[in-house]
Amino acid sequence: MNNKLKIGIIGLGTVGQGVYKVLKNFDDIEIVSCAVKNLNKKREVEVNNLTDDVMSIAKNPDVDVVVEVAGGIGVFDALKEAIKNGKHIVTANKELLARHGAELFDLAKKYNTAILYEAAVAGGIPIILPIKTSLAANKFSKVAGILNGTTNYILTKMEEENLSYEDCLAKAQKLGYAETDPTGDVEGFDAMYKIAILANIVFDKRIDVNKIYREGITKISAQDIKIADELGYKIKLIAQAKTFNDDENTLDIRVHPMLVDKNNSISDIRNATNAVMLNGFPVDKVMFVGPGAGEFPTASSVVGDILAIKAENHRKDDVLPMMGCKHESYANQISIEETKNCYYLRIKADNTPGEIGKIGTACGEYKINLSCIIQRELDTKGDATIIVITEKCLEKDMNSMITSIEKDSKTKVLNKIRVM
Amino acid sequence: MNNKLKIGIIGLGTVGQGVYKVLKNFDDIEIVSCAVKNLNKKREVEVNNLTDDVMSIAKNPDVDVVVEVAGGIGVFDALKEAIKNGKHIVTANKELLARHGAELFDLAKKYNTAILYEAAVAGGIPIILPIKTSLAANKFSKVAGILNGTTNYILTKMEEENLSYEDCLAKAQKLGYAETDPTGDVEGFDAMYKIAILANIVFDKRIDVNKIYREGITKISAQDIKIADELGYKIKLIAQAKTFNDDENTLDIRVHPMLVDKNNSISDIRNATNAVMLNGFPVDKVMFVGPGAGEFPTASSVVGDILAIKAENHRKDDVLPMMGCKHESYANQISIEETKNCYYLRIKADNTPGEIGKIGTACGEYKINLSCIIQRELDTKGDATIIVITEKCLEKDMNSMITSIEKDSKTKVLNKIRVM
Repeated sequence: MNNKLKIGIIGLGTVGQGVYKVLKNFDDIEIVSCAVKNLNKKREVEVNNLTDDVMSIAKNPDVDVVVEVAGGIGVFDALKEAIKNGKHIVTANKELLARHGAELFDLAKKYNTAILYEAAVAGGIPIILPIKTSLAANKFSKVAGILNGTTNYILTKMEEENLSYEDCLAKAQKLGYAETDPTGDVEGFDAMYKIAILANIVFDKRIDVNKIYREGITKISAQDIKIADELGYKIKLIAQAKTFNDDENTLDIRVHPMLVDKNNSISDIRNATNAVMLNGFPVDKVMFVGPGAGEFPTASSVVGDILAIKAENHRKDDVLPMMGCKHESYANQISIEETKNCYYLRIKADNTPGEIGKIGTACGEYKINLSCIIQRELDTKGDATIIVITEKCLEKDMNSMITSIEKDSKTKVLNKIRVM
Repeated sequence: MNNKLKIGIIGLGTVGQGVYKVLKNFDDIEIVSCAVKNLNKKREVEVNNLTDDVMSIAKNPDVDVVVEVAGGIGVFDALKEAIKNGKHIVTANKELLARHGAELFDLAKKYNTAILYEAAVAGGIPIILPIKTSLAANKFSKVAGILNGTTNYILTKMEEENLSYEDCLAKAQKLGYAETDPTGDVEGFDAMYKIAILANIVFDKRIDVNKIYREGITKISAQDIKIADELGYKIKLIAQAKTFNDDENTLDIRVHPMLVDKNNSISDIRNATNAVMLNGFPVDKVMFVGPGAGEFPTASSVVGDILAIKAENHRKDDVLPMMGCKHESYANQISIEETKNCYYLRIKADNTPGEIGKIGTACGEYKINLSCIIQRELDTKGDATIIVITEKCLEKDMNSMITSIEKDSKTKVLNKIRVM
């Protein structure tokens, strides 16, 4: 009797090779076939059953579970085909799930297969399964966190070594923490996919990823980080989703940098570490912290999912019933213009008396209360730098106020960062 | 058709009432009966089917799941009877699991029922299920954390308000964070039960709870906390279990106060919050933080377990296969005498020249390297206070060294606290 679980792997990059190495420790799991783009590429692991035909894995009658660690939208057809062939899916593909998850989950329901994706969000941190099982009794009001290791590494280095964004990006690229084209990370796309997936299961609603407000870290300067530090904050790229005005059908979902109070434990998350915080009833508040990426941490989540399927694979149907998708309706997603936030503004202004008064008056016109306004030393050109921190106000009022003060051509808001 | 899941609850104290309130939101779960000690006690919830006969719930053919939130060893027989009657168990009872878990799990295996106990360790934090499922691919080397909210609350208050242990205990009792007889918390029993349960599933071994080294917080003084703070540490009651000399069959398990470096995120866990850290391969390091107790957070875990059973209760056997107990052999547990630690010593000594030299010489004799030795201002009696922090050395050498310096009747080691 051969009751080994049979696996087909799509993708043998860093994560794929990690999964391959870890699976070698499990006698009862057999890797039947691995699909790669380039058959001749040198790899750390020696693999016998390589193929460059992804569909052959999706259709292989010997494969019980397709493990997809290739990433990107290109594998969509192969995964659909695999599900139609009754295979369970384990995937780390946040982009595919965020953009086309609904179609995949509908298909999985139809063909009675499971889709697990612990590795798609926050690498090695167990978060998908705890939300869907241990925390299943909760109504959540918010999920927020640091979901991208690359940007957190860059922001940590900027802060610790007082370096520019560009220098730290170069450093991250040299160490392999950032890709040659860093857009996906530094512009917040990666974190956006992940918060879409989290919002999905935390609020049991489908999410339109195109409606998520997204802002990356490329405009954060060493000066912003230094000023924030002096005022008691760190700057972090925060991904968050929360109910809007206590209406559980309406969600405020976004990714952007934020000033995080140093008393908030999220501010202590350094380098490539990720953190996810959940607020809900009855649990109140829980936080999960750990490695957000990397060969082995990600493999921990992928293999955990494989083992969960292995434990139930003898069943004819209804494998892992709690892990299925239970919702079909889309959330209302409100635009950033409608949200209320506290803001940090770094303003360049003429060094004349009355400059602070002018800004204060403009804020008053738009009913924006200030919690602090500071004029800093002059820059090399003799311009004044004015730092403003506001109380909560509407994003659209803030934008109108900025337009208003920038009518004076000597006044320029150099950065606007929301405060957590 | 009535496919409601039918529940019997044992215990309607704080947690039991929380569970009752939360379950009221689930139409497909029916509370058939609740067993309490005192039928006439006033409660926040109005319950119809009260009984003071625990066994009636264990034997009730209408009950699918027995939810035990009474605590203590007294419910052991009722839970055994419930299992023999084919019922699944959800329990928050750390003492019972730590002392008699082996017998319960053996019985559950025999009768093909599930025992879930997410609420028994770290209240609302999902930890049992993630370890057994999402992290199942890992070999762990260590689990450590703050598992008792009462003692962490007392230590936090001592630090923040510079108060004595006794004052903070009284405060905790007034707020309901500590019981009238606080022994179970302040002497480390509660944390000991919890680390026994965690060690059990993290290392897949049975644990003899009587062999766990245990020390409470009653000897920690405000002075220790102040000095530790000045040296860059906080004092926390740490429960930990780790493999000894890389031998996965031999475990070093203990509960005692520790000086925790302020750079270690465990040091930031304040008040009644709990935290659990895991080290293993391939995941590396993950941390879970959240409320360690309380009516609703604990109910979150209890009801999460109930929902997990509900999702699989239609199965004839093999409900939640990953959650079963997979081990039968006991770990070797080494004694504290054999472990190596760094130490903080607070020593009262005569205010004469050469006192520091004497201590340094004694340490040298027992091959104990010092990482710092400081003489502090004299106390009111004119005695000197000398603070020593050592590098790693054997506990038994440390104890011999202390005996040796205390031969001088004027020298007294007032406190010895290990350093994390």
